[in-house]
Amino acid sequence: MNRKLKMGMVGGSKDAFIGAIHRMAANLDGQIELVCGAFSSNPAKSRETGESLYLPSDRIYENFEQMILAEAALPEGERMDFVSIVTPNHVHYAPAALALKHGFHVMIDKPLALSMDEAKSLESQVESGGLLLGLTHTYTGYPMIKHARHMIKSGEFGKIRKVYVEYPQGWLSRRKEETGHKGASWRTDPARSGISGCMGDIGTHAENMVEFVTGLRIQRLCAQLNIVVEGRPIDDDGAVLMEFDNGATGVLTASQIAAGEENDLKIRAYGEKGGVEWSHSDPNSLWLKWLDRPAELLRAGADRELSPVAQKNIRTPAGHPEGYIEAFANLYKNFAHQLRARLNNTTPDPDLLDVPTVSDGVRGMAFIEKVVESSNAGGIWIPFIY
Amino acid sequence: MNRKLKMGMVGGSKDAFIGAIHRMAANLDGQIELVCGAFSSNPAKSRETGESLYLPSDRIYENFEQMILAEAALPEGERMDFVSIVTPNHVHYAPAALALKHGFHVMIDKPLALSMDEAKSLESQVESGGLLLGLTHTYTGYPMIKHARHMIKSGEFGKIRKVYVEYPQGWLSRRKEETGHKGASWRTDPARSGISGCMGDIGTHAENMVEFVTGLRIQRLCAQLNIVVEGRPIDDDGAVLMEFDNGATGVLTASQIAAGEENDLKIRAYGEKGGVEWSHSDPNSLWLKWLDRPAELLRAGADRELSPVAQKNIRTPAGHPEGYIEAFANLYKNFAHQLRARLNNTTPDPDLLDVPTVSDGVRGMAFIEKVVESSNAGGIWIPFIY
Amino acid sequence: MNRKLKMGMVGGSKDAFIGAIHRMAANLDGQIELVCGAFSSNPAKSRETGESLYLPSDRIYENFEQMILAEAALPEGERMDFVSIVTPNHVHYAPAALALKHGFHVMIDKPLALSMDEAKSLESQVESGGLLLGLTHTYTGYPMIKHARHMIKSGEFGKIRKVYVEYPQGWLSRRKEETGHKGASWRTDPARSGISGCMGDIGTHAENMVEFVTGLRIQRLCAQLNIVVEGRPIDDDGAVLMEFDNGATGVLTASQIAAGEENDLKIRAYGEKGGVEWSHSDPNSLWLKWLDRPAELLRAGADRELSPVAQKNIRTPAGHPEGYIEAFANLYKNFAHQLRARLNNTTPDPDLLDVPTVSDGVRGMAFIEKVVESSNAGGIWIPFIY
Amino acid sequence: MNRKLKMGMVGGSKDAFIGAIHRMAANLDGQIELVCGAFSSNPAKSRETGESLYLPSDRIYENFEQMILAEAALPEGERMDFVSIVTPNHVHYAPAALALKHGFHVMIDKPLALSMDEAKSLESQVESGGLLLGLTHTYTGYPMIKHARHMIKSGEFGKIRKVYVEYPQGWLSRRKEETGHKGASWRTDPARSGISGCMGDIGTHAENMVEFVTGLRIQRLCAQLNIVVEGRPIDDDGAVLMEFDNGATGVLTASQIAAGEENDLKIRAYGEKGGVEWSHSDPNSLWLKWLDRPAELLRAGADRELSPVAQKNIRTPAGHPEGYIEAFANLYKNFAHQLRARLNNTTPDPDLLDVPTVSDGVRGMAFIEKVVESSNAGGIWIPFIY
Repeated sequence: MNRKLKMGMVGGSKDAFIGAIHRMAANLDGQIELVCGAFSSNPAKSRETGESLYLPSDRIYENFEQMILAEAALPEGERMDFVSIVTPNHVHYAPAALALKHGFHVMIDKPLALSMDEAKSLESQVESGGLLLGLTHTYTGYPMIKHARHMIKSGEFGKIRKVYVEYPQGWLSRRKEETGHKGASWRTDPARSGISGCMGDIGTHAENMVEFVTGLRIQRLCAQLNIVVEGRPIDDDGAVLMEFDNGATGVLTASQIAAGEENDLKIRAYGEKGGVEWSHSDPNSLWLKWLDRPAELLRAGADRELSPVAQKNIRTPAGHPEGYIEAFANLYKNFAHQLRARLNNTTPDPDLLDVPTVSDGVRGMAFIEKVVESSNAGGIWIPFIY
Repeated sequence: MNRKLKMGMVGGSKDAFIGAIHRMAANLDGQIELVCGAFSSNPAKSRETGESLYLPSDRIYENFEQMILAEAALPEGERMDFVSIVTPNHVHYAPAALALKHGFHVMIDKPLALSMDEAKSLESQVESGGLLLGLTHTYTGYPMIKHARHMIKSGEFGKIRKVYVEYPQGWLSRRKEETGHKGASWRTDPARSGISGCMGDIGTHAENMVEFVTGLRIQRLCAQLNIVVEGRPIDDDGAVLMEFDNGATGVLTASQIAAGEENDLKIRAYGEKGGVEWSHSDPNSLWLKWLDRPAELLRAGADRELSPVAQKNIRTPAGHPEGYIEAFANLYKNFAHQLRARLNNTTPDPDLLDVPTVSDGVRGMAFIEKVVESSNAGGIWIPFIY
Repeated sequence: MNRKLKMGMVGGSKDAFIGAIHRMAANLDGQIELVCGAFSSNPAKSRETGESLYLPSDRIYENFEQMILAEAALPEGERMDFVSIVTPNHVHYAPAALALKHGFHVMIDKPLALSMDEAKSLESQVESGGLLLGLTHTYTGYPMIKHARHMIKSGEFGKIRKVYVEYPQGWLSRRKEETGHKGASWRTDPARSGISGCMGDIGTHAENMVEFVTGLRIQRLCAQLNIVVEGRPIDDDGAVLMEFDNGATGVLTASQIAAGEENDLKIRAYGEKGGVEWSHSDPNSLWLKWLDRPAELLRAGADRELSPVAQKNIRTPAGHPEGYIEAFANLYKNFAHQLRARLNNTTPDPDLLDVPTVSDGVRGMAFIEKVVESSNAGGIWIPFIY
Repeated sequence: MNRKLKMGMVGGSKDAFIGAIHRMAANLDGQIELVCGAFSSNPAKSRETGESLYLPSDRIYENFEQMILAEAALPEGERMDFVSIVTPNHVHYAPAALALKHGFHVMIDKPLALSMDEAKSLESQVESGGLLLGLTHTYTGYPMIKHARHMIKSGEFGKIRKVYVEYPQGWLSRRKEETGHKGASWRTDPARSGISGCMGDIGTHAENMVEFVTGLRIQRLCAQLNIVVEGRPIDDDGAVLMEFDNGATGVLTASQIAAGEENDLKIRAYGEKGGVEWSHSDPNSLWLKWLDRPAELLRAGADRELSPVAQKNIRTPAGHPEGYIEAFANLYKNFAHQLRARLNNTTPDPDLLDVPTVSDGVRGMAFIEKVVESSNAGGIWIPFIY
């Protein structure tokens, strides 16, 4: 197979932020072409979006059911190879399940589903169908995050003892959901978002980041979730104390009411010999802090000595900043690599297998359920078992 | 009275870090002169220290009891006006109590004492004796901290909703206490440090900072204290979830095993309209983050428009960095101002009354007791009542 | 016309850095598709590159002459709409001139050509042919640069009085050109690079940036060019004092031997009321420094209030960093917009007309000639007339 | 001699910024006591200042002549040991010359004098009298500057090839001198400031910094001085291209009209193997940038491994910021050390001999004369010979 991979999209109409990001991420490296889409539950909007993307009219669908069935009926090589699902949380399960049922691989936005039941159902479908499901925990796509993970795994800091992860945002400091803002509306509506708002939307990114980077697994946690803005039916802020499987402890904070903050996910992990720090506001840098020598500033760059897994996710020399879209594109690029290997019956590069999977998605749903459970019980410690 | 104030010192022998800082802080503004001292429990060391400070030999004492009694016997105007106590925690109470008993005002390092009982006893002595006791929570001396406090009090951010305070250090990542390091030794020895190590030493600074800046009072808390370095008899790391009297929540972290970190106390407080951020690594800056307009960077400087309480604690124009010693000196300068007003029977400037007091010290001891109690009970929420 | 624009490429074989960047930039927004290329003067390499890009074999050409003639012979709608030229400087003129001659619009890497004569010849071809030529002075693609330009033009800082621009790199601190490094080899070879090395390669970016942002025009200059690394036949460092048409002065520095530096182009411009600062290491930020009030940090973001010209070049909300590839993509996106307007006979958005043109390219060549002239004469002031 | 050194002061009345800084710097380390002063040319003001400093009335003088003569008549051990001169430039020479004549050592603010003639005269007086003259080029007092100097001298970066030094201020962006601002008035008045404004006031700091840190000597220079604010009789901005004695080149910029800037003196020096960067806005950090490995961030701190010369100028552990006053105090502390060694007939510590001297002052005056000469001649290259 020597062609671009063909992608269909569910969701992502013209005024949706994240759909456009998915498309740019898929476009960037010239490995994937968008061939069809059901971009909105409103057929006219879906059509308008598809046309603005220069799709032929017969590949613009009225809804995802129509798309999946019609594409399944096309000959191989013409039909889409995988579906990208970029809808709000309550429209994750149905299109993903239907796509998997019809043999399509899936890329899907996080969190995986609306509930643990949905998540587990998708997990078993993926496992039984032998298909790929990639979950866009975007921050795992940053090369310096991959390098931090590599260093920790290699033992360069000794045993990890303490982890801080924070995800402060301020955009929901007021009831933006009452102003017609789409993203704010569904994210603060339990029917569309799930049982948690802030923790479901960004807390899961933080949880995923901690476990991705450190390789540790949360074993117990104690959470305090808050509804800060009056009248909101769902948490917009929270903090979680954590214990990990190696005995280390950690603190996770996430907020949507940290007024004036943007989106600065930050992780710090400290081992016996030193610590590592990464911040989304300066994503091409990685601070190494050492007990016995000066701190070092590692920088992303194709011309830098970094671990292969980092290097394979870098496109520019040092000093030419890559950002959020490139990190996102790394997920698509690596997913495409895995998919192509499967289609060509070749062995994929082991360095390109770290795209978050359906199991990461199940773990994220478990995290949401556990922090809600702990907080509802008054902020008690509970085991992270699911 | 038109002369420098006369200071005696307990502790602070030549090889002690914090004693030298106290002396520089007292020296800086030319308001105070060191006239006597009992610098060590070792008389020879006390003598050697006093001589290196150019003190006359009859004002270098063998111990604090001798000093306090001898000074009390000197005529007014010649004898010391106040005592500065810069010993480890277990030698706070006795000299402070004796000094107060003999009518001397007291400056004392934090935490106030070894236990709540000692702290309360000092509090009643201070109250009954009508004397001044200043507690060196140094960070309250920074002008931008005072300005942040002023802005919050003035309502510029609306109601405060969320507070993060962190105090990461890495210097106890190994058992430095076994290498003969003085500061490490007593700080990790419950007999000399009290029931908490990390929380007593730096957690109390963080607690004091939160309440000083926001004006809020902790009402409930849930703490997790850890002994990370094996064999250490006392916590070297911890995290505290907090609820405040106005309904806001907060997270406090303190660590002495965040390998590679120095001493970067940092506070962030978010209200309805925006947030404020201050970090000890850049103490002359104050970030104002706003919901509806660009972030602003306020800078310390005698030539800047800042609140009077900030201005009265600044010595240089913007761009001429002031640091830790100047913040420390502000405590001494303002304490001296209060003392001078008292001696001269004048009204002190209300802007110079914010030196931490014995009551702040009692509150700090309560914080230590409460976090230990919560943590020992398995990390449960408890009320902050004492 | 409702389809993607079709791009052919000259240069950019698999191991060339900048060719891949051009392709990603063209891919990103889904407005342009690569349809053909002559990727190398080595036909086998060109073929290999084209195949790796999934091009049909009949659109992979052996050289640019073949490509341009063959494409010109294809029917409209099938043939390429424009050529992207990404070769070293000495292979700019010939393909550009031939493409223009055959009616193809051109995107071309900077500097425009090898000499002033070539540059002027291209300028007259463009003007007489009524075609578009876009020059990839990438840094003009950054939204915060566009916003800085907008603010200065709007008079928010008053008259501009002083400008500093610097472009420090360290990658040529050793004779990398002797290690087989392609980019180093041609850049330090006057036959392929032109009369200047450092000033031609990055000094022109700095010159373009100054004039783009401030709207000022250099009127006189005094340059000192240096060959720092022994044996190199061409400048690898330099500094230029400048006078502008409004009486302001400026300083431009560029270096390839600032050992340890990456690629941190930085501009600062000061007017009567304040100044503006932008640095490539933090490209989504713009510092506004004011005489009478605190400095402000403007941040890029689709959710921020910025000038329309900035907003139309932003893809993500604040806190989701965009970088070099996105800036590069803005040049392609805006060039595509202009080209599409022309093909559809519509009026382009005036905010999207700021892609650097052939005239900017001529001015860049003049800059190169003038700094070499001044430096060769011993570092004297000369008028910037051409 | 086992006592504090006795200092007299000329200038520094209550409303002068720099006089107060000198006093705090002298106070800080408890090595020096202020015993007398002629604080103003206005006797009442001098008296008022002296009283506020708790001086006995017979040691508060009406003018410097009176002070020097009266102190010279006092018995040794009672009279002042040295004079600190903190007046505007035009009142440097007379008190310094008189003090030297009467055998007093001198600390003096920079620049040394109003003219080259005055400077040379002081130099010969110092040399013939065998007295100490210290010049307060404050920035040389920073420990990380001393460490940078040490590293360069030790060859850690190889031969230095390029130096950038900048000193941007914005405080004279308007005619502050017309608002009664003292510092602005004399600094912009050639009769009190000398032939240069900006270059004399801060350009000399930059020049001194370059030569102090790199050990290089300027050999040729080309300067452009500007009067930016209309009506001002003296330069308020300028830039200088430099060649050094080892063949390296450099760029120096200084401005008082960089609107919005504070006081961020910054130096960057690049050698064959790497570069070093220091900025006054973060004075406890030193960036080491390397060709072949990650950048390192060295931090000041008594607990850090740094060169002895740096360590001996540090008072606090890492993370406890020291600033401008501490740097200033290092000059006084080291001057006091030298003076004490002389009085005690001991050998001073070689690490404490780097206080700028009268010869540095002469060189600074030469710099002022040369940049004015070059600029007046139209910005030509001239040798730096004097």
